Amino acid sequence: MTRFAMGLDFGTESVRALVVDCDRGREVAEAVSPYAHGVISKTLPGKKKPLPLDFALQHPGDYIESTRKAVRQVLKSAPASKIVGIGVDFTACTILPIRRDGMPLMLLPRFRKNPHAWVKLWKHHAAQPEADRVNEVGRARREPLLKYYSGLISSEWMVPKCMEIARKAPDVYRAADLIVDAGDWLVFQLTGQFTRNACAAGYKGLWNSKLGFPSKSFLGALDPRVRNLADKWLKNIVVPGRRAGLVSREFARKSGLRAGTPVSAATIDAHSGVSGMGVSGEGTLSIIMGTSSCHMVLSRKLRLFNGYAGVTKDGIIPGFYGYESGQNAVGDVFAWFTRDFLGAPFDRLSKKARLLKPGQSGLVALDWLNGARSVLMNANLSGMVLGLTLSSKPEEVYRALIEGTAFGTKIIVEAYRDNGVPVRELAVCGGLVKDPLILQIYADIIGLPVRVAASNQAVALGAAIFGAVAAGKEAGGFATASEAIAKMTRPPAATYKPDRAAAKVYRQLFETYRKCHDFFGREQTALMVGLKKLMRRA
Amino acid sequence: MTRFAMGLDFGTESVRALVVDCDRGREVAEAVSPYAHGVISKTLPGKKKPLPLDFALQHPGDYIESTRKAVRQVLKSAPASKIVGIGVDFTACTILPIRRDGMPLMLLPRFRKNPHAWVKLWKHHAAQPEADRVNEVGRARREPLLKYYSGLISSEWMVPKCMEIARKAPDVYRAADLIVDAGDWLVFQLTGQFTRNACAAGYKGLWNSKLGFPSKSFLGALDPRVRNLADKWLKNIVVPGRRAGLVSREFARKSGLRAGTPVSAATIDAHSGVSGMGVSGEGTLSIIMGTSSCHMVLSRKLRLFNGYAGVTKDGIIPGFYGYESGQNAVGDVFAWFTRDFLGAPFDRLSKKARLLKPGQSGLVALDWLNGARSVLMNANLSGMVLGLTLSSKPEEVYRALIEGTAFGTKIIVEAYRDNGVPVRELAVCGGLVKDPLILQIYADIIGLPVRVAASNQAVALGAAIFGAVAAGKEAGGFATASEAIAKMTRPPAATYKPDRAAAKVYRQLFETYRKCHDFFGREQTALMVGLKKLMRRA
Repeated sequence: MTRFAMGLDFGTESVRALVVDCDRGREVAEAVSPYAHGVISKTLPGKKKPLPLDFALQHPGDYIESTRKAVRQVLKSAPASKIVGIGVDFTACTILPIRRDGMPLMLLPRFRKNPHAWVKLWKHHAAQPEADRVNEVGRARREPLLKYYSGLISSEWMVPKCMEIARKAPDVYRAADLIVDAGDWLVFQLTGQFTRNACAAGYKGLWNSKLGFPSKSFLGALDPRVRNLADKWLKNIVVPGRRAGLVSREFARKSGLRAGTPVSAATIDAHSGVSGMGVSGEGTLSIIMGTSSCHMVLSRKLRLFNGYAGVTKDGIIPGFYGYESGQNAVGDVFAWFTRDFLGAPFDRLSKKARLLKPGQSGLVALDWLNGARSVLMNANLSGMVLGLTLSSKPEEVYRALIEGTAFGTKIIVEAYRDNGVPVRELAVCGGLVKDPLILQIYADIIGLPVRVAASNQAVALGAAIFGAVAAGKEAGGFATASEAIAKMTRPPAATYKPDRAAAKVYRQLFETYRKCHDFFGREQTALMVGLKKLMRRA
Repeated sequence: MTRFAMGLDFGTESVRALVVDCDRGREVAEAVSPYAHGVISKTLPGKKKPLPLDFALQHPGDYIESTRKAVRQVLKSAPASKIVGIGVDFTACTILPIRRDGMPLMLLPRFRKNPHAWVKLWKHHAAQPEADRVNEVGRARREPLLKYYSGLISSEWMVPKCMEIARKAPDVYRAADLIVDAGDWLVFQLTGQFTRNACAAGYKGLWNSKLGFPSKSFLGALDPRVRNLADKWLKNIVVPGRRAGLVSREFARKSGLRAGTPVSAATIDAHSGVSGMGVSGEGTLSIIMGTSSCHMVLSRKLRLFNGYAGVTKDGIIPGFYGYESGQNAVGDVFAWFTRDFLGAPFDRLSKKARLLKPGQSGLVALDWLNGARSVLMNANLSGMVLGLTLSSKPEEVYRALIEGTAFGTKIIVEAYRDNGVPVRELAVCGGLVKDPLILQIYADIIGLPVRVAASNQAVALGAAIFGAVAAGKEAGGFATASEAIAKMTRPPAATYKPDRAAAKVYRQLFETYRKCHDFFGREQTALMVGLKKLMRRA
């Protein structure tokens, strides 16, 4: 008997519904439905008043409507009766203030015009002063939870975003019974049950399996107005693949799904890609390579050190500590250089870059064009190209930029290895894995095999996998994530192995990269930071 | 009675004849005549055998023929009878092996096919191994003469080029009665008199007014084959403006000049620009800004320090120590970026760059795209652009490159000032002085007024000035260089003054430049040098 699982993958612009055969990993139906209002960053819909700088909002109704459409679409090729479970992944940290009954405050007439009542998308960056405050106070108090985030939290995360509401819109803050992750809110829409997913709670919500939630005393020290903030949070933490609830009759009616279908707790989109890439244990660094890169690695051991963005127990796959690192700009760097800077056709440049030998250009680039996340955690660093001569060519700089991002990944790999988290191979998915030049350079520079996910939709596939796990064996799913992963993912589409000669040259170039990395990123951070300050002042 | 002086300015591609009114500095006639064979770097004319890498030769007959043409041309508007004196400037170090009667060896059938018998142009760079040897042996022996060159001599200079002949073409070396500077050979062609000009001898020939010529023991230690090299050199040093001879009847017949017209000793072309810019004393850094930049400053005092290319007594204007510094690529950097790298119209880029405020781009560039001459003297350094972001624009990088060359000049200015050689203003001439953006940036960054030479042909004008001095007062010229300069040059075409607000921002940016300069140029030279090595190996 055929059995399917469904993944609902909520990205920045749209939701994707993917239906997967639980026995063979065949992707049987897929639909994408964009959010009607997209990313709201200029004005609220239909209003003229400009939003403040760095705002990025969404309309929660869009999620429901797009889900309905995408689900109805896939159900045309995959009958609802055969879907044993549903998984949900969502961008993070994307949050919204709601009433206890799940009603988003922005849907109430009195809050409709208040941007702080809307969904704050992951890339809403206006809470930087609040993040600075968390870091400063946390450091001063030596809050142990900060150790799980290399000592630094981001303006994208839950606490700064909640603080921003409390400070800028006290009435919204007061009226909010709950402030929840959008992924958890979505699961509530499907099931009528509130759960808090361990993934978003752990990586973005300062929740810790050992330390619990931030204390009243810490929150109060941040700002007396948020002393009781934790009261507004969901507290029933649920790990990925654990059943959060069953599809409600109401949502079944809306979407055509079968009422009673098990739904997994939500996960963060990138993290969902790990299982979608077929990774279920130690030794693999999983990378989602797109406009930016997100790196995840599983380990049985907890190692606290500076260099990752966060570590959470059971955060990615139950049974493991999941570590997360990031590079703020990867595909964005290549797009900037080819499209914006040169205005040159990407293909021609890439073709020329492919003909170059390692080291031939004499160039080395620092890849921090959008700041440096792991391992330096400094948004005010910037990019550099070293070794320019009067015969330097655009394709040489382009290749150096690719190499720069690979060196950046190597720094991340070395940080894990140096601290006892094994990394023996890379698994990759995302928009950039179609480019063999990029992947061969990564293999040669990092010195590890790079295997490309079989699925083009590894993130949605990961969600489907957790859907099948949430179903459980008795309901036609799987007992464990590793079983589901083994059945529902296929062998790599390709594996890139390091070329010995290239790797040798790149080892030398990496030493140059590392010296520049340490000089500008550690010893003399004031140089790049000073340039950013001058930019802002001019 | 009207009286004129003539300057003959021998550049890389052509000779320029300029006739100037001695009383008012009016330029009354000008003609340019290109060398028939130009720069010979691929094969000898009419031959198929490729020349070795880094060869740059010329045909000495071209100089004579082009001079004849250019002189005949200007004499149409300026009668030979009114020309009181002639000055000659020449590229340096450009040399040729000759017989005692002045016959270039390459004109003899037995040497015609031997590239080492031809003129070696200043930018012939094949004698690098020989230059390395001079530096190594000189350092080991602590040769005091090296102090006058910051401890380093260039492959372009006399001794390496002569060594190259001795090693690669012993028969040419043996047959050469003399190896002379092309400028001195040209003066011999005009006058039938052999002189050695103090300028080329001092800056490129390792001659020193105090120490004399390199010793037999030093030369022998370099290579036993050149132990007696100094015997092949002219030794009667003549300073700029001193009369070298009179136009011979033979050359008068050829050219239409008046036989008996006084001819000054030759000078190096760039150095001739100092007087042509109206500079006759201390306090001014004179810059020829073109594809590369050459900086000269006069001082009554001898200060030996590391940071300039050479210092010579009476080398530029008698009575002063003349110091010379250089930047290997300036206009070349701008041309590379706009024409070669971007393939963008220069004008549009420059217009956009003009609209940027100092510091606005957040970029700082190291300008060593063709290696670093002063003050680091390291040909294997390279360029760098720091501060790149995803919104960096081509015009921002272009402006940063201009600023980078200005920071490089500021480093030179500071080296002089820190060592007691006063610099209070800049005087500029050359191809780049037409661009107000560049000059304002230089004024703002260096923090000194920049005055633009009145003459577009300051170098040829300088030669004419020395021609008038060689004539002497009694023959209608001048008794001293300063008198001639005062009469024959006009007030600056424009003066750019530092803008206070811009200068303040640039002082901050300069600190960043300086830290990068010291890191890559002094503390960690292996980084850029290593990249160059990898380039060559690939």
